[in-house]
Amino acid sequence: MVPVYSAAMGLSTADEYRASLDDGRVLWYRGRRVPDILAEADLRVAVDHAALDYEIGHDPVYRDLAVAKDPDTGEEFSAYYALPRSTDDLLARSRLIETVTGLGGTMVTLVKEIGSDALFGLLRVLEGDSLERAQAFYEHCRTGDLSVAVAQTDVKGDRSLPPHAQPDPDHYVHVVEERADGIVVRGAKCHTSISANAHEIIVLPTRAMGPDDADYAVSFATPVNAPGLSLYVSAYGARDHDEFEFPVSSKHKMLETLTVFDDVFVPWERVFLCREPEKAGAVSSAFVEYHRFTAVSYKLPLLDALVGTAALIAEMNGVSKAGHVRDKITRLITYAETVRALTDMAALRAPVDERGLAYPDPLTTNLAKYTFATQYHAALELVQDCAGGLLVTGPGGADWANPEVRAVLEKFYAAKAPAEERLRLLNTISDLTARDFGGYHAVLAVHAEGSIEAEKLQIYRAYEPGRAVAYARRLAGIG
Amino acid sequence: MVPVYSAAMGLSTADEYRASLDDGRVLWYRGRRVPDILAEADLRVAVDHAALDYEIGHDPVYRDLAVAKDPDTGEEFSAYYALPRSTDDLLARSRLIETVTGLGGTMVTLVKEIGSDALFGLLRVLEGDSLERAQAFYEHCRTGDLSVAVAQTDVKGDRSLPPHAQPDPDHYVHVVEERADGIVVRGAKCHTSISANAHEIIVLPTRAMGPDDADYAVSFATPVNAPGLSLYVSAYGARDHDEFEFPVSSKHKMLETLTVFDDVFVPWERVFLCREPEKAGAVSSAFVEYHRFTAVSYKLPLLDALVGTAALIAEMNGVSKAGHVRDKITRLITYAETVRALTDMAALRAPVDERGLAYPDPLTTNLAKYTFATQYHAALELVQDCAGGLLVTGPGGADWANPEVRAVLEKFYAAKAPAEERLRLLNTISDLTARDFGGYHAVLAVHAEGSIEAEKLQIYRAYEPGRAVAYARRLAGIG
Amino acid sequence: MVPVYSAAMGLSTADEYRASLDDGRVLWYRGRRVPDILAEADLRVAVDHAALDYEIGHDPVYRDLAVAKDPDTGEEFSAYYALPRSTDDLLARSRLIETVTGLGGTMVTLVKEIGSDALFGLLRVLEGDSLERAQAFYEHCRTGDLSVAVAQTDVKGDRSLPPHAQPDPDHYVHVVEERADGIVVRGAKCHTSISANAHEIIVLPTRAMGPDDADYAVSFATPVNAPGLSLYVSAYGARDHDEFEFPVSSKHKMLETLTVFDDVFVPWERVFLCREPEKAGAVSSAFVEYHRFTAVSYKLPLLDALVGTAALIAEMNGVSKAGHVRDKITRLITYAETVRALTDMAALRAPVDERGLAYPDPLTTNLAKYTFATQYHAALELVQDCAGGLLVTGPGGADWANPEVRAVLEKFYAAKAPAEERLRLLNTISDLTARDFGGYHAVLAVHAEGSIEAEKLQIYRAYEPGRAVAYARRLAGIG
Amino acid sequence: MVPVYSAAMGLSTADEYRASLDDGRVLWYRGRRVPDILAEADLRVAVDHAALDYEIGHDPVYRDLAVAKDPDTGEEFSAYYALPRSTDDLLARSRLIETVTGLGGTMVTLVKEIGSDALFGLLRVLEGDSLERAQAFYEHCRTGDLSVAVAQTDVKGDRSLPPHAQPDPDHYVHVVEERADGIVVRGAKCHTSISANAHEIIVLPTRAMGPDDADYAVSFATPVNAPGLSLYVSAYGARDHDEFEFPVSSKHKMLETLTVFDDVFVPWERVFLCREPEKAGAVSSAFVEYHRFTAVSYKLPLLDALVGTAALIAEMNGVSKAGHVRDKITRLITYAETVRALTDMAALRAPVDERGLAYPDPLTTNLAKYTFATQYHAALELVQDCAGGLLVTGPGGADWANPEVRAVLEKFYAAKAPAEERLRLLNTISDLTARDFGGYHAVLAVHAEGSIEAEKLQIYRAYEPGRAVAYARRLAGIG
Repeated sequence: MVPVYSAAMGLSTADEYRASLDDGRVLWYRGRRVPDILAEADLRVAVDHAALDYEIGHDPVYRDLAVAKDPDTGEEFSAYYALPRSTDDLLARSRLIETVTGLGGTMVTLVKEIGSDALFGLLRVLEGDSLERAQAFYEHCRTGDLSVAVAQTDVKGDRSLPPHAQPDPDHYVHVVEERADGIVVRGAKCHTSISANAHEIIVLPTRAMGPDDADYAVSFATPVNAPGLSLYVSAYGARDHDEFEFPVSSKHKMLETLTVFDDVFVPWERVFLCREPEKAGAVSSAFVEYHRFTAVSYKLPLLDALVGTAALIAEMNGVSKAGHVRDKITRLITYAETVRALTDMAALRAPVDERGLAYPDPLTTNLAKYTFATQYHAALELVQDCAGGLLVTGPGGADWANPEVRAVLEKFYAAKAPAEERLRLLNTISDLTARDFGGYHAVLAVHAEGSIEAEKLQIYRAYEPGRAVAYARRLAGIG
Repeated sequence: MVPVYSAAMGLSTADEYRASLDDGRVLWYRGRRVPDILAEADLRVAVDHAALDYEIGHDPVYRDLAVAKDPDTGEEFSAYYALPRSTDDLLARSRLIETVTGLGGTMVTLVKEIGSDALFGLLRVLEGDSLERAQAFYEHCRTGDLSVAVAQTDVKGDRSLPPHAQPDPDHYVHVVEERADGIVVRGAKCHTSISANAHEIIVLPTRAMGPDDADYAVSFATPVNAPGLSLYVSAYGARDHDEFEFPVSSKHKMLETLTVFDDVFVPWERVFLCREPEKAGAVSSAFVEYHRFTAVSYKLPLLDALVGTAALIAEMNGVSKAGHVRDKITRLITYAETVRALTDMAALRAPVDERGLAYPDPLTTNLAKYTFATQYHAALELVQDCAGGLLVTGPGGADWANPEVRAVLEKFYAAKAPAEERLRLLNTISDLTARDFGGYHAVLAVHAEGSIEAEKLQIYRAYEPGRAVAYARRLAGIG
Repeated sequence: MVPVYSAAMGLSTADEYRASLDDGRVLWYRGRRVPDILAEADLRVAVDHAALDYEIGHDPVYRDLAVAKDPDTGEEFSAYYALPRSTDDLLARSRLIETVTGLGGTMVTLVKEIGSDALFGLLRVLEGDSLERAQAFYEHCRTGDLSVAVAQTDVKGDRSLPPHAQPDPDHYVHVVEERADGIVVRGAKCHTSISANAHEIIVLPTRAMGPDDADYAVSFATPVNAPGLSLYVSAYGARDHDEFEFPVSSKHKMLETLTVFDDVFVPWERVFLCREPEKAGAVSSAFVEYHRFTAVSYKLPLLDALVGTAALIAEMNGVSKAGHVRDKITRLITYAETVRALTDMAALRAPVDERGLAYPDPLTTNLAKYTFATQYHAALELVQDCAGGLLVTGPGGADWANPEVRAVLEKFYAAKAPAEERLRLLNTISDLTARDFGGYHAVLAVHAEGSIEAEKLQIYRAYEPGRAVAYARRLAGIG
Repeated sequence: MVPVYSAAMGLSTADEYRASLDDGRVLWYRGRRVPDILAEADLRVAVDHAALDYEIGHDPVYRDLAVAKDPDTGEEFSAYYALPRSTDDLLARSRLIETVTGLGGTMVTLVKEIGSDALFGLLRVLEGDSLERAQAFYEHCRTGDLSVAVAQTDVKGDRSLPPHAQPDPDHYVHVVEERADGIVVRGAKCHTSISANAHEIIVLPTRAMGPDDADYAVSFATPVNAPGLSLYVSAYGARDHDEFEFPVSSKHKMLETLTVFDDVFVPWERVFLCREPEKAGAVSSAFVEYHRFTAVSYKLPLLDALVGTAALIAEMNGVSKAGHVRDKITRLITYAETVRALTDMAALRAPVDERGLAYPDPLTTNLAKYTFATQYHAALELVQDCAGGLLVTGPGGADWANPEVRAVLEKFYAAKAPAEERLRLLNTISDLTARDFGGYHAVLAVHAEGSIEAEKLQIYRAYEPGRAVAYARRLAGIG
């Protein structure tokens, strides 16, 4: 039951990380049980991608960014787990996330990011025993250099009904039994990112709960190989991994699971919230505060990719001097740099709470996320406009691999740049904007880390209207 | 050389159409020569899809729409080839295209649409011998019930240079020799839709040409199996054809080719334009006038699909009464119905030229196309917003096929509708908006039948500013 | 009590119209009782403007459009009162409204338009006695060639409460007494257009009413000079009438009143609805159906003015060839012509009810109105962008009138056009987009004839989702 | 010739400022010479408004923000003239400008802001003698506590032609003579803000100049009362000053002039650039860098006013809980706070040049300005939507002043707030968004401190594409 891996100390290597996933977890993929995640080609891509979070700790180029040191013991640990205590800490965290996502081909690695977001949130809002348990679990993750997923979104059933009114009580994860040594939980979470290749899963309530939903106000941590826990990996994005045709997605992937709790036992020392509906909202939103900041940080390489590929393909096509093309690139720059400026500003305005934890300014974080989310599809249009129809009418990897065909392609697809450069760039744009990987990014833009509506609500709530309303009154002379 | 098929008279059947494609044409796909298009699974989907244009002629439900009758001979022929002589003819053509595209799962069949668009254009602007040749070729297509592709977009090389200034003279298709019996052409066209499964290809100049570009001012028709002609079918969208996972694209597909002319001989009776650069613009744009009208007609089922899937998934998710959801659906309705109204209006305002041919009003046609193209990506955001993240985190066909897994999915993905209905609908939305097929639609929205910039230019040109400017002067008192 | 004017038959002249307004009506303007509307400069502008609706009946250029003939009696009457029985009738009505608004400097005259909209609506939905009364009143207006206002919007008090729950019962107009000979009404309507210079006012409920709001479900007609009726004319837009500085608003104006009913008696023959809350919604929306069509018809000259002034000032400034300027003008054209196409289409799709009355297609009418309303402010930005900052930094009429100053202005404000033409055009644009008159147009775009939210609601309701949802089901294979 | 005022030292009072304007300057307004600016009601409003820049120096509440101290001499001077040497200096300057504009009812005072912007720019880019002259003039302004206008925009004639090719050589200000003691200049500048009530005018070239435009490459300073200089004050916005009807514009106003140089002599010590076309661009853009930062700083109170008035009127109308209203207010918040965040970030990212002068980051400054400019009209729509049609149909000051009328208004215009509060607020919104003052703000949004196109150009230029393009290459594997 206890994963061997959790005994490890210090910074694990990528290979140690890979090896640690062989722990008996119950994975399903494309209709089959997967005994060895590393042996399944699609899933292996995701594991290797996630391993970036371990590689950078041993890479001299990134060590400064990726490794933190305990001031007391001198012990090194992953910087993802460094508690943010200032604007500078949050800026450093943002740079770390941005950098690794950049290495990850616009795809966030997330295996340490999301778990630490949840832990910071718990450490900010829990109290008493619960806080002590969260602190102990935080130490467990930090010293074990663990990969930690967060399961928050319940499958929800009929969204017009609250948890307790669902025809099927399991449509939100809930407590079915309290025992002396722990609790038993049942239900399912969906959209659980990186759980298939994580060590631990932190479960959080999906939203504020009313008194009738007490059973659903539950938060805990569980190892992925816990009895009764089954992970159904999404089939989305499964396909061949030709590097010519899919320059990005052939190497970078994130897994999402339907995460089913079939009477999973959780010992009390890993229970953070149990039947306390009045605290569900605070636990939920403390995570979200950190996680949206992570989100806008990891979106920056994707935005750079949109600007960079659009500018470069326009140059290769020979249209970069056209007024309307410059206009489109300027709009992409404006979009990307506005999100970047707001992201940095969320850190620069970070409050520090009475426990000494800094958190990104909620208003600014949500402005950044909302700006990102609401202009993303328009940005895709601009990039595709600069690139041309060849995005969806071009040759494939097997064409390129045949010398006879390649000669034809090289002759006819040359433009202001050689055909090879142009085709590889076009395939990159297609991968990012028009194929499964692009669709994944697009849907995530709208839904991940909270929907657009959730961000609007948070902007409305986080805004302090006092100044503006007082000013309106003064202008009107109605003091 | 002469395709057997062209001797056929009257309305072919789908099977006759399929059989006719075995004519020795040179097809390449995914790095291999394809001796039999019907034996290649990906390509077969496209042939079967295109065969819809033949099936409807024999389907009692659609015969009235799909079959025209020669008033003199009583002979029946495909309604796609009926010359439009009135608003009603254009409306009927629009309904035909919309209906068959609807049957085609939002994908236009195009095998008779695009060729007839080009023929109508040629019949409007050619004169003398050229006109007679076009008329003869039109009769050939009509009586043979042929599938006809149009190759217009050259590969273009460096887009900042005109054809004759390209480093490689073959980057636009051009005349290399005039003989007593015909001409020899060389070069390549790209984005040639449905050529791989057509009988004939009409080649048109891609744009207006200057005097120095005379060799490039060439228009002709050639059978697809002409010696020297090679078609390289795009690999885009190749993938498995699981019906659960890809409800639409598993059954509907359009092929695009890089169409290479390696000294192809064209007899004079099939040459419509040869080294007459001053006529290149008119030939090019006469086609575009009809083809953009075809385009907005065939976009209507896609727009209905966006509205319908968004409304239905909102209902299934239990959120259809939420104010912001209704707002999103209203915006989708507004988008879809504005395009529909403008499309119909393009026919209602159709002028009839001195030859008795009706053509869609250019200003209104371009308003419709521009409205479609510039709001498409925003519409995708709205649909994805209504659907939820499950679009990219859901199960695959193999999951559904395994009864053990299916039971889990049925329990946890049920909402206000049973899981099966909901998952099938979500996969439909994913197919239409987030996967390769969706990316294909999105890139086509921006680039097919002319880019957004081309539509803007045409709106500017087609608008008659006299009334508005005179009114401005009158208001200003500067008559 | 009975206005002398109502006895008149046939087509009145503008002077007869002006004279008829001297009937003892209670008008207040800028804090004063106005005994003679014609003697008050600001108000006189509005009367002269409204008189256009009478002038055109006697102008040979417009008679065909402006005058209808009774097929039985041969009697001529104003075409505004011609009952629409077909698409052609609605198109003719639209042209009439557009034409007269064009003469009116982008400002609708409205004195016959709005009243006939209300009458058509009443004739469509009333029944029995009520219908007979409406028919008689319609004949009274038609044969008397009357100007008729419509008072619909109540002052409403706290908008979160229904009529009967308002702290002040008079915040919606209501029945306070039923007598043998009629009813007594009390309350106030706001935004009542052209009431100050109309003969009659038709009162309609502002919205659907519940059973508790029975007293508020009232509709009737009353002469403007009825005892107890007081009109408080809005001070908005009052200013000097220099023609150089205000080329449009110095000549064209519409008056709005707060219309107070202080126990006004209405005889039964003029009561159309009394304490029938279940019919309030139908009466309200039948008017709106016609009136929004009137609205989009009268917006067309304003849209032409935006396109025409932008194109002309760009030419005068010497920037009409710049790519971004052409882009802006193209966007203005797209906006204007989309509204025009949708307006015409609303007539082309007009249903005819079982009484033989044609009414504009509600979906298309609301698409037109919504498109107009939601893009208007963006269009102002485009026009102002083309015009330049001189819109708000230029000289005034008194500057121009001084020859010494004028010489300086002529020298320095010349561009590609003489300074006088350019300044007059700039003042026109300023009048239309940046000054009181422009603000009036802008606020009307958002609120008049129903708010943007009302139009969205109506689009949602008028749309028949059956086809799209069925298509979604078919695509998903869940028939 | 030398204004007495310039000899003054230290912080002037508002009254000293007012008195100092009586210096013989040649002002024209509404067709008349104005001998005494203080005696002309419209102009007096502008002088009193500008005097705020003097009042705050003596107001204990604002002294810390408004007064700087010379570290060497201990001498106090206006903080507007404090040279920015760090991010903190720029933030303090931004707060000062925002604060005073807030006191100024959303209207910037500008009499010290714009001149110091120009001086900072000159001190950054001039060299040698020119730099010394600029330093001396800066000391003159700082120690004299002067109001300084900037005349940059030439009248320009035909914008498609460069300065030297204009039919009238005076359409750009140019050097007509070089003398031993100075130069003589001729021509006219337009849109010269606050010149009528400034002490000095700094003239800058409007743009980069080519070699043929040498005569037009001129920059200098001149007192406003210099012989040959005539100011034609714009008539825009002249109207009655009723405080009820125009709560903001009755008290706050900025004057713009056509500034005519009729052979004005400028001594060499005030000439900063003379016939050096290669330096014109740098001089022009150094000013713009500072001035756009001033611009976004002074827009913040206006943005607060839009948010605050919309939120407050929604509350007063009783609609603040409606979903669509909250959505609109959220969009206003997003707009306002994005501009604010970008403005602050422009200071936070400020580079410091080798002379020790800090300047706002050009990319971020232009992002802020562009965001402000391109969403302003949409924001007006949102505010007007929340407010209602009463914005343009309400009563005037004279109505309110008449007790009999006021009683009616108080009864019928009460909502969730008393009628007086609501009407005063509505008039404020009308003033800000729908009347002359609102139109002034709207046109300034598009044109002031550079047009939207200028900001786009600057974003494109200021953006360093290296990172994004390198990333695109890495993703594509084309290093």
